[in-house]
Formats: sequence, C-alpha cells, structure tokens
Amino acid sequence: MSKRALQITREQNFPDWYQAIVRDGDMAETSPVRGCMIIKPWGWGVWERIQAELDQRIKDTGHENCYFPLFIPLSFIAKEAEHVEGFAKEMAVVTHHRLMNQGGKLVVDPSAKLEEPLIVRPTSETIIGDAFQRWIKSYRDLPLLINQWANVVRWELRTRLFLRTAEFLWQEGHTAHAGRDDAMAETLKMLEVYREFAETVLAMPVIAGEKPANERFPGADNTYSIEAMMQDGKALQAGTSHYLGTHFAEAQNIQFQNAQGVMTHCHTTSWGVSTRLIGGVIMTHGDDDGLRLPPMIAPRQIVIVPMLRDKPEDAALLDYVRALEKDLKALGIRVLLDVKPTKSAEKRWNWVRKGAPVIVEIGPRDAAGGQVTFMRRDALRDGDKIASHALARDAFVSGAPKLLADIQSALFNEAKARLDGNIVTGLKSFDELAAHFGEAGGDDEATTFKGWAKVAWSRPEGAALDAIADRLKALKLTIRNAPMTQDPVSGPCLFTATPAKEWVLVARAY
Amino acid sequence: MSKRALQITREQNFPDWYQAIVRDGDMAETSPVRGCMIIKPWGWGVWERIQAELDQRIKDTGHENCYFPLFIPLSFIAKEAEHVEGFAKEMAVVTHHRLMNQGGKLVVDPSAKLEEPLIVRPTSETIIGDAFQRWIKSYRDLPLLINQWANVVRWELRTRLFLRTAEFLWQEGHTAHAGRDDAMAETLKMLEVYREFAETVLAMPVIAGEKPANERFPGADNTYSIEAMMQDGKALQAGTSHYLGTHFAEAQNIQFQNAQGVMTHCHTTSWGVSTRLIGGVIMTHGDDDGLRLPPMIAPRQIVIVPMLRDKPEDAALLDYVRALEKDLKALGIRVLLDVKPTKSAEKRWNWVRKGAPVIVEIGPRDAAGGQVTFMRRDALRDGDKIASHALARDAFVSGAPKLLADIQSALFNEAKARLDGNIVTGLKSFDELAAHFGEAGGDDEATTFKGWAKVAWSRPEGAALDAIADRLKALKLTIRNAPMTQDPVSGPCLFTATPAKEWVLVARAY
Repeated sequence: MSKRALQITREQNFPDWYQAIVRDGDMAETSPVRGCMIIKPWGWGVWERIQAELDQRIKDTGHENCYFPLFIPLSFIAKEAEHVEGFAKEMAVVTHHRLMNQGGKLVVDPSAKLEEPLIVRPTSETIIGDAFQRWIKSYRDLPLLINQWANVVRWELRTRLFLRTAEFLWQEGHTAHAGRDDAMAETLKMLEVYREFAETVLAMPVIAGEKPANERFPGADNTYSIEAMMQDGKALQAGTSHYLGTHFAEAQNIQFQNAQGVMTHCHTTSWGVSTRLIGGVIMTHGDDDGLRLPPMIAPRQIVIVPMLRDKPEDAALLDYVRALEKDLKALGIRVLLDVKPTKSAEKRWNWVRKGAPVIVEIGPRDAAGGQVTFMRRDALRDGDKIASHALARDAFVSGAPKLLADIQSALFNEAKARLDGNIVTGLKSFDELAAHFGEAGGDDEATTFKGWAKVAWSRPEGAALDAIADRLKALKLTIRNAPMTQDPVSGPCLFTATPAKEWVLVARAY
Repeated sequence: MSKRALQITREQNFPDWYQAIVRDGDMAETSPVRGCMIIKPWGWGVWERIQAELDQRIKDTGHENCYFPLFIPLSFIAKEAEHVEGFAKEMAVVTHHRLMNQGGKLVVDPSAKLEEPLIVRPTSETIIGDAFQRWIKSYRDLPLLINQWANVVRWELRTRLFLRTAEFLWQEGHTAHAGRDDAMAETLKMLEVYREFAETVLAMPVIAGEKPANERFPGADNTYSIEAMMQDGKALQAGTSHYLGTHFAEAQNIQFQNAQGVMTHCHTTSWGVSTRLIGGVIMTHGDDDGLRLPPMIAPRQIVIVPMLRDKPEDAALLDYVRALEKDLKALGIRVLLDVKPTKSAEKRWNWVRKGAPVIVEIGPRDAAGGQVTFMRRDALRDGDKIASHALARDAFVSGAPKLLADIQSALFNEAKARLDGNIVTGLKSFDELAAHFGEAGGDDEATTFKGWAKVAWSRPEGAALDAIADRLKALKLTIRNAPMTQDPVSGPCLFTATPAKEWVLVARAY
C-alpha cells in the first residue's frame, strides 16, 4: 500500500480520519473552553468564502442584514417555551456582571447578580420577533426580509469540530409576510438558494425536501432541509428552511393592519446554515491525503512552491514565480506564493493536506524552460504515483480559470455519482430495511458504507409516526426528508402498508 | 429659521441631536437587553463597508483572520489580572448551562452549575495568547500575524448607541514577534493603517499619536491612538495600537527557540477598532438634516426616487429609471431604485436623514427630456432652499464616479478644516488652559465648542503624571496623545514648567 499524507484512511476509521483532516489540514482545533473551537486561518478562509458567496445570494433575493443582541432575556425564552413543544433547554446562562478580588483571588462578585438572567442566544427568533412586533405596523411594511450573521451557543454534550460545537457561527434569516402563500414561497425560495449554493459553490450535491412532522423545528408548520451524503454513507443536514405559520407571530404579537384596516397576524419564516457546512465539505471531498477544496471556496486556489536552494540561482527562480503569481492574480485568481523558510517537499504535502486545488512546483529547470509543473489536488495520484502535469507558462496561465472550473466540476461529479449510486429503492418491508442497514452495533461509526434508502411513505403523523421513528431509532436510522422532486409512487407504505403518497429518504445521519 | 429634517439641531443639544440621527437615520436602536443595541440594515450596511475596506488593508499587510471562542475561562482572566494593573472587572459571567421547568415556569437549573465560570470575552488577549503559546515553537513561526472580527462584551453602566454599548463589534489584531524592533514596527504600521483608513474611507481626519503613560492599555509598554474631532469639539478615540513588550508573553509563556537554540519570550502587539467608528462618522459628518455618509461607506451611494403617481405614465418613467439604475450599476456604483409604495417627498427626506450621498429625483418631465435631477447630500442646501442640480442623463452617468469622489473629498475637507482650525496652541499655563476650556459645569455635554489644545509637555510619569491627570479631570479634560508628527518644541512644559520634550493634545473626550 502506498504511503498517504494522512496517518489514517477513511476505511480504517472514518471519524478518526475526519479529526486528522481537521487537524492536519489546519482547519480548526479544540479550545480550552469546553465544546468551543478555534477556527484557524485556513478554515476561517473557507468560511469567509462561504459567507461571501451565500451573502450575495441572500442579498440578491431582497434580504437585508442586521445585527441583534448576543443576549436574550430569560422572559423572552420563557414565552417561546410556552408556545413550543420539544424546546431545548441546554443554554449558556449569564447570571452576574462583575468579578471581584477576594483574598488575591478573582471570583464572581455575588453582589453583581443580574435581576433577570440573560441567555446567550441559541437562535434569535424571540429577540428578532420582538423587533418585528415593533417595526411592523401596516401591510406596507411587508414582507420584512432580514438576515443576520452571528455566533450562537447551544450547550452540547458530545461535540465534534464544525459538526457539533457549543458555539458555532451561522446565518439566520427571519422574514414576516402578509399571508401564507407569500411566506411559503419565501420558505421554498431559500431552500432553493441553499440547494443551488451547496451544489454550485460547495460542489456538494444535496437532496432538498420536506422533513417529516417529527423532525420539524419546534413551532414550525413545515420544515425543509437539504441533505448531503458523506463518504461514510451518512446524511448531513446541511441547511433548513422553516415555514412557521402564525405560531411565532401569535406568541409575539407580530401584527399588521391589512389594506382593509384589520389587524392581522403575520406569517413568518426562518432559515439557516452554519459552520457545519465546513464539516460537510470535508466529509464530501476529503481523501486519504487530506482535504480537497472546491476552488470556489478555497482561500487560495493556486499555491506556487518555488524549489529554493539557498543559492544565487534562487533570484532568477523568484523572479519567474513572482511574474507567474502576478499574471494569475490579474485573472482574479486567489494565488499564494509560498516562500516560507521550510523545505519544498514539506510545503507540497502541507498544501496537499490543506487541499489547495492546484499546487505548482517550480524548479530552476521549469524557470529556464518557461514551463509550469503542477498537481491537481482533485486527481493527485495516478495509481501510487503523484500525477504531475507540465505546461508552457503562457498556456498554464491562460488555461488556469478553466482548470479551476474543471476541478470544481470534477469534485461535484464525483460526489454526485456517489450520491446517485448509493440510494437503494427496492426495499419493500421494514425487515428488508433492517437487513439492508444491519443491526446497529455498539459503535455505529464502524459500520460499513450503506448509503441511503428511498422508501414508499404514506405520511403518517402523531402516534403512528412516533412508533415508526422509534423502530428506526433502534437501527440508528431517521427519515431525512421527502424530496421536492418526486418520482411517481404506487403501492403500499413500507411502514404502514397503507397506500403510499410519496418517497422519503431513510439514513443514518450526523 | 428654515425647517430641517431632524427635530433638533446640533446647537440646541448635541447629545440629543446624535440620538435623533441614530434613530431617524435608521442606524440602530436600543434593545430590550440592557446596554445592547440592534444595528438596523442601514447601520449594518455601513459596518459591512467598514469591514470590507479595513479587512482588505489588514490582509494586505500580511495578517490572517481566525476565530476564537466567545467564552474565556475565569482562570485565564485571573492570570491576566495578576499581571495587569487597572484591570476592569465588569464582565458578563456565565455560571449555568441549563434551564428547567419549575411549576410551569422556566428557571435556571441549579444542578447545571458550571465547575468554572466562563466570561463572555471583553477582549481575546488571554485565549489568543494561550493559542500562541501552543502554536509558536521556533523563530520560523514568527512573526505570527492574526486578526479576528468578533463581538465582545463589557458591562457598561452608561451606554450610548455605537459609542459605548455592553456588546459591541470589533476587530482585534494580535501579533507575536521575535524582537522589540519588529513588534514596534508592527504597532506603528497598524496605527498608520488606521490613520489612512479613517481619512481615506471614513473621510474622518485624525491625529495619530502616542498616549501618555496613564492612558495606556493595561499591560502595554506603549499605546498609540488615532483621535478624531467631533462637531461638539470633543475628541473620539477611534482606534488604538499597543506594543505589549514581553508582558503578556511572560504571563502566558509565549516563547520561541531562536536561531541559536535559546528559548526566548516573544514581543507582542494588539490593535483594534470597533462599531464606535460609526458613532464617529455620525458626529463628524452629520448635519441638522441628518446623516451625511461618505460614499466609500454608504451602503447605497446613489438613490433614485421616481415620482410615481399611480397613473399609466408611470410605466415610461419606470423604464427610464431602470435603465439609469442599470448603467450606474455597470460602473460599480451601489445604486438603489426606491419604488416602495410611499410618497416621493417622504422618500426624499428619508434618504436625506439616512445620508445617501446622491439622491436622484426623476419626474415625467426629466424622463421625457432625458435629464437627471439630483441633490448632493454633502451640500444639500443653498441658504434655506434645497440645492437641486440637473444634468443630461449621459453626462450624469459618466460623471457619477467623479461626483462621488468629489463628495468624499468635500466631506473630508470640511472635517479637516474644522480639526485644523480648532486646536489652540498659545496656552502657556494651566490657568490659561482652564480659562480656555472654562470650568466644568454639572453637565459637560452642554458646554460650547472649545476644540482641542496643543500644549508643551515634558513627558512626566508616575505620581507627577497622576497629579496632572487629576487636575485635568476636574476640568473634564484628558491628554489625548502626543502626535506622531511633531512641530519643534521649546520652552517649558505647561504642567511641570520643566523643559518640554514634545506637544500633546488636550481635550474633552467621548
């Protein structure tokens, strides 16, 4: 077996492989604060790209960014809790506002207790709803289309970098509308924005669909998601969009005077994606040599490593690579010329692990011959060997935008083939489903690749749905969503044996 | 007196005028959470422009962005407190991580008390220093140049939107270097980045200089600031850059192995600007009709208001303004076509208050005549009348970039003349200083415009400096900084009568 740039392969242990990429790809690390991560420059660069691309789409669809407070009064949360079943209570609670010196030790000042505890926002529904209630007076103020980029905190017990952390970063859209149709159109529009963004920008194919009733956001009438297939076959919910009906508007008194002068409750929506997307990118595109970043989100799309030798010839080589860097930058490409004082072989493997889409290595011979030698990170190896390409300098420069576009497509196509090829559709009974996925072992992480199942579904609700969810849970399975694009369905529901209404996706999930 | 777009003038009551602009300019509002603000879309748009422009400068000078946790363990803060005098203790303290239902009421779960309280970051020195201590091993790792955009919290008693809030947004740069010279060069480089940014982008002239010892950041060897003059004559500290020596490196064990293999403490720096800058922009450029935004930070640089009348003729008018919008956008100008269903006069005054640099009003006659009628927000009035300009459509479009550049310059020049014209230099004694500024009344906000004084200074330290600071404090004055650009100084220090070494600026301040 060939030596790979990571110490561990996906096959050996997928969760450990994930940790290795996050660490060796210099994406993030755990912090001294339980459950909170430090996002390192390379990981943060990916998030900046994600923000820039998605923010443009959010603005292009008519939304405006705002900023709301980090803290939410307990009474606001209590009001929501009254209205919402299944309300999570693990939150960071601020109770005091001062420290003091006590015998040379810094302690919490007991006299500085807050009258009302403050909650570090787990989401901003309540505080934004309170503003909506003040801002909205008439139908002329609608729709109100707001988005916020912010940090939020949920006290998670089992954390994993990017996938589940106590503090994470996200965008949360909150909108208010005059009626159901408009709010539902908004909900589906943003679902589609997420789908297009995931596929175009992250090169991560997803299936957009509606969550079953038991997986809805607490308080939502309808919850939609995009689901991506990771390389261990599990599903990752990569974004959600909720139609909240008049539920929150009633709880928070968000009303408008309609054209007839009648006070009416708004219909609201909310939708969000988070730093979890970065975990999805890693588990979609990473290989046993490290991360592979789609060019659209790579902080540096082309990295140039000059083979410097601390000799006088370095000067000519540096001139050559600097001119190359300049020409690529002029094309709007994000280039890095890596002149750090470390060995070039070490640099190469560093950039391989970090997943720079194109790694250019230039030695004196390339410079003399007017040539560019490079690797494509999406197709690094030819068998066990590194696949190195060489082009005349000008051909490389003029072809660079297409090269990056090709890499973007290649990564998408590879992931799309995996998604399309790993959804079984022939399962007819719960026993067949159970046999396909196997009994859940003690450690479900170690199970082999099973992909997803698409099964016929009669859309049961209430106790019937709960019973199904329980049976699935014993197999560590969940219903992911009912895809928006449906093939015709006939015959009985796999679970209830009553006539099926649609297909749903069943999978293990993050 | 002419009617103005705000209910109050600067002269009547400057603090109330400030509040009126923030509110009527739709910049921000107070939230239900004590001391925390809601930044509204227009205000947030200004912050986005500030972030984009400054972030580019931070990256161009070799810094990389990261993200560190919101929470800091109490023990980290305690360690810093041991090393730092004058350490502020007003912070938000998280003590619990769960809520519970108690008799139908949501309360803090007493069983979910954290072992160690967490502090919501007031600044990230300690948690970033902890990472530096792990990341830095050898001189090859230096300089380490990190920046973070984040929210921070300091429990302020008297808050004012943008200027002083419990939660605010900022960037904090943190760097580590092998030696003093390199760290000091970094400190001054970032001071210069701030000066250039404030003057070029915010059109806000500033004076860069070094703070006296009593105004240093706790733990800093040298603190530098940029100071801007507000329209009430007060100074606003708009950005700071600190050389921290080896103080923090020693407290946090940030060491590197130098080229000779010897373990050595790093020299560190930190520097930051915050949402306070927006307050500075308002108080620099606002007038009695509202805000005036420099085009470089205006979320919309040109706003087009079509005079719609709900008549069939509207169609032709809309075609005309849409084509105009498109042509301006093609030049990279941020344009808004305001077609909201409100009266055009109302829209005009709305955009005047919000400070859009150019407000275009197009009626059917303009459309028919191929003309553009517009107002420059920087020069809105000619006496009591609105100064309206008209240009042929194509001339307006082709001249638009220059028009915006002219407005940017005009705002800067106006503020620069105010700054330059309001620094008195002839004061020879403390009595003259006191007489110039007048005795401090009960309400210093109400004092008339005094500007700043530049006085000769012998650079006293210790008890002598403290005594001077106390005397100044009785007049509500502080020493702002010793400008980097110094005129020759001779004769005695105004305070100590010993030979002066430099000039310092004295002023009332925010």
